[in-house]
Amino acid sequence: MGVINEHFNRLTANYLFAEIANRVSAYKEANKGCDLISMGIGDVTRPLPPVVVEAIQSAAQEMGDPVTFRGYGPYEGYGFLREAIARYYQDKLGVEVNTSEIFVASGAKDDLGAILDLFRQGVTAIIPDPVYPAYLDVSAITGNDVIYIDGNESNGFLPGPPDMRADLVYLCSPNNPTGAVYTRQGLKEWVNYANRCGAIILFDAAYESFVSDPGLPRSILSIPGARTCAIELCSFSKTAGFTGVRCGYTVIPMELERQGSNIGGLWNRRLAIKYNGASYIVQKAAEAVLSDEGYRQIRVNTESYLANAKEIAKTMDELGIQYTGGDNSPYIWFRCPGNMGSWQVFDMLLAEANVVCTPGAGFGRNGEGWVRLSAFGGQETTREAMRRVKRVLERQG
Amino acid sequence: MGVINEHFNRLTANYLFAEIANRVSAYKEANKGCDLISMGIGDVTRPLPPVVVEAIQSAAQEMGDPVTFRGYGPYEGYGFLREAIARYYQDKLGVEVNTSEIFVASGAKDDLGAILDLFRQGVTAIIPDPVYPAYLDVSAITGNDVIYIDGNESNGFLPGPPDMRADLVYLCSPNNPTGAVYTRQGLKEWVNYANRCGAIILFDAAYESFVSDPGLPRSILSIPGARTCAIELCSFSKTAGFTGVRCGYTVIPMELERQGSNIGGLWNRRLAIKYNGASYIVQKAAEAVLSDEGYRQIRVNTESYLANAKEIAKTMDELGIQYTGGDNSPYIWFRCPGNMGSWQVFDMLLAEANVVCTPGAGFGRNGEGWVRLSAFGGQETTREAMRRVKRVLERQG
Repeated sequence: MGVINEHFNRLTANYLFAEIANRVSAYKEANKGCDLISMGIGDVTRPLPPVVVEAIQSAAQEMGDPVTFRGYGPYEGYGFLREAIARYYQDKLGVEVNTSEIFVASGAKDDLGAILDLFRQGVTAIIPDPVYPAYLDVSAITGNDVIYIDGNESNGFLPGPPDMRADLVYLCSPNNPTGAVYTRQGLKEWVNYANRCGAIILFDAAYESFVSDPGLPRSILSIPGARTCAIELCSFSKTAGFTGVRCGYTVIPMELERQGSNIGGLWNRRLAIKYNGASYIVQKAAEAVLSDEGYRQIRVNTESYLANAKEIAKTMDELGIQYTGGDNSPYIWFRCPGNMGSWQVFDMLLAEANVVCTPGAGFGRNGEGWVRLSAFGGQETTREAMRRVKRVLERQG
Repeated sequence: MGVINEHFNRLTANYLFAEIANRVSAYKEANKGCDLISMGIGDVTRPLPPVVVEAIQSAAQEMGDPVTFRGYGPYEGYGFLREAIARYYQDKLGVEVNTSEIFVASGAKDDLGAILDLFRQGVTAIIPDPVYPAYLDVSAITGNDVIYIDGNESNGFLPGPPDMRADLVYLCSPNNPTGAVYTRQGLKEWVNYANRCGAIILFDAAYESFVSDPGLPRSILSIPGARTCAIELCSFSKTAGFTGVRCGYTVIPMELERQGSNIGGLWNRRLAIKYNGASYIVQKAAEAVLSDEGYRQIRVNTESYLANAKEIAKTMDELGIQYTGGDNSPYIWFRCPGNMGSWQVFDMLLAEANVVCTPGAGFGRNGEGWVRLSAFGGQETTREAMRRVKRVLERQG
C-alpha cells in the first residue's frame, strides 16, 4: 500500500495563489519596470498600529529579563488574551462566550485544517462553491467526502442547507471570495439544519470586523441554537494587520458534544499533543489590539479598507457591472464582461491595466465568469487601480 | 459511524506533564509558601540574549512602518532564515544542506505531528520506549500501527533496528528523556535499516546543540545514506530559549522520495494548504540567534545548562546511583533507589526535597524504575536542588 497519504492525489494541479504568483512574475520578467497594483491575494497593507508595536517591544524586553522571562505557555493560549477575546465578544459582538471556550492559535487557516484531526476520516463535508480553496484542499488530503453546494446569482452566493445530511459544514461570512454576508435568518437555517442532522458547522469569521450593518450577524454564536452545533474560527489577520504576525482563535461552545465526547475537550487534548501554544510575543500583540486604544487604532485601518471597497463598488456601478460585496466586506466579486472566462479577465487586467485580480475559477466551478478584487490596498492606489480597470472594462462594454 | 476520530480513544488517561502539573499544584495548595524547585518539564529558564531582543524590537518597528510592513510571508519560511540555517549546518555541524530543503515552522513538536499528514493512515511506526510522549500520542490519534522497541540498561537506552520492517521510525538523539546519544555507528545501523526496508526516519534533533563531544553526531544528515531515508526536525527552543517564542525547522533532503512522490514537495504542498508561515517577528528573532554575536550569546546559556548537568551527574556519582545523560545533553536519567516506582520517587522528592522531577513511567513501560532530571534551571538553584535530593536519596541508600 505504500507509505504516502494517497489523498494528496485528489489535489488539483496548482494552488490558486501560487498560480497567480507565477503568472505575475512571468509578466514582470517580460515587462521590467511596469507599475503593477495588486488587488489579488487578500493581504493587508496598512502597518501595525503604534500600540501593537509597543506591546511587541515591551514583550521582547520582558523575554530578555531573567525575572520576567517566560518559557512554554499554556497550549490553549494565555489567560490574559483569552479574557480579552471574551470581553471583545461581549462588548463588540454582543455574544457571551466563556474564557474556557476560547483557544488561541497561530491563525484561522491553521485551525481550519487542524480541527479535522478531531473527526473520523471519510466524514461528509459540505463545502460551498465558490469558496476559499483551503477548505477544499484540506478536506481532500484528509480523505473527507466532499458535498458541494452551489453559490450563484440566484441565491446571491449565499447557499442554504441541502436536502441530504452531512457531518461537517464549512461556512464563511462575510464570504471569501464573494463578499456576500449571511443574514441572521440565513444563518438560522444552517443552525437548524445542523442541529437536526447532527452536523458541525465550521464557521470562518475572519472578516467579521468588516460588517458595519448592525442588522447582520458577526458571529454564528449570536444565533440561537448555535452552541450545540457550531465552532467559530477567527483571526487577527484582517482585523488588525496580522497576516505576517500570525494569531487567531477558535471558539468551541461547551455544549458542543458528539457521541459523548466534548469537542472542546478533544481540541484541548489535541493542542497538548501537537502544539505548544502561540508565541508569547504574538499573544501580547493581540492583547494590545483588543485594548481600548488598540481597538481605536485598528478601526482606522478597517474603515480605510471599507472606503476602498466602496470606491471599487462605485466603479462597478458606473460600469453597470453586476457584483456582490463591497459593503460589509473587503472583497468585491464582479461578473466578467461579455462571455470572457475569469482567467481571461485576469490576463487582460494584468496586461492592459497592470492590475492583479483573482480569477473566480480558482474558487470553484461556480466562480467561473466572476472575478474577485480585494480592498486591502492603499486609498490612492485603489483609486488609480479603479481608473485603469474602468478604462479597460469600458472597452469590453 | 459517528463523526469523532475514534483513535482518540487510544490515548491513555492523562498527558504526562498535565498530571505532573496537577500533583504539583495540589502539593502547593496544601503547603502554602513551600520553596519548590522544578527539574520536571524540560523548559528553559535563561532569558533571550540581547541580540535577539533587539531583533524582535527592530522587526516590530518595521511592521509599524508602511514602507517596511510585511503581510503574508512564504509558507516555508523567509529566505533570510532558511539561508542562515543552511550556513549553520555547514559551519557548526559540517553538513551540506540546500536552502530549499529547509522548512521553517513554529516548533519541532508542531512539525513532528504535522508531518504525519503526508503518510497513509495505518502505517507502521517504530517508537522507542521510553520516549517523549508526544510521538506516541500523535501516532495514536493518527491511527498508526505502533511497534515499540525497548530502550533499557542493556543497550544503554539506545535501541537498534528490529528484525521486522516499518514505514516510519521516530528517533531522538540526544534523547529525551534519557540523555543518551547515538554514536555515528548507532545511527548508521538505523540508516542502513531504513534504506533496506524503505522506512522514513523522523529524527528529532531538538537537543543537538548540547553535544560537546566532537565524535558524536549532531545531525542524522551527517551519516552517509541518510539523505534517502531521513527527515530531521529541529528547534530553537532549547538552543536559544525559544520555548515561549516558538520557532523550529524541518529538513527534508531532495533525494527523499517514496512511490514517485518527492517528500519535500508534498510537505511544501501541505504547508500551503494548512499553514501561513511562521511569524515574521519570530523569524527575525531566529535569524539573530544564528548571527555571529547571537551564537556567541546563546552558547553562554547552553554552557550554563551543561554545567548544571555535570553538577547533577556529580551528585549521582557521589550517591553511587546509576544514570545516563549529563554529558552531551540537558537531561539526567537515573535509576530509582531500592525497588521504588518512579511516581513514588516523584512524590517523595516533591514532599521531602521540594524538587519536581519527571517520573520515568510517564515515558513508557521501560521508563518505570527511572527518573528524569532537567538541567535547565539556574546554577545556584540546581546546586540547592541537588543538596536536597542528595539528602533524601542518601536515606534510601
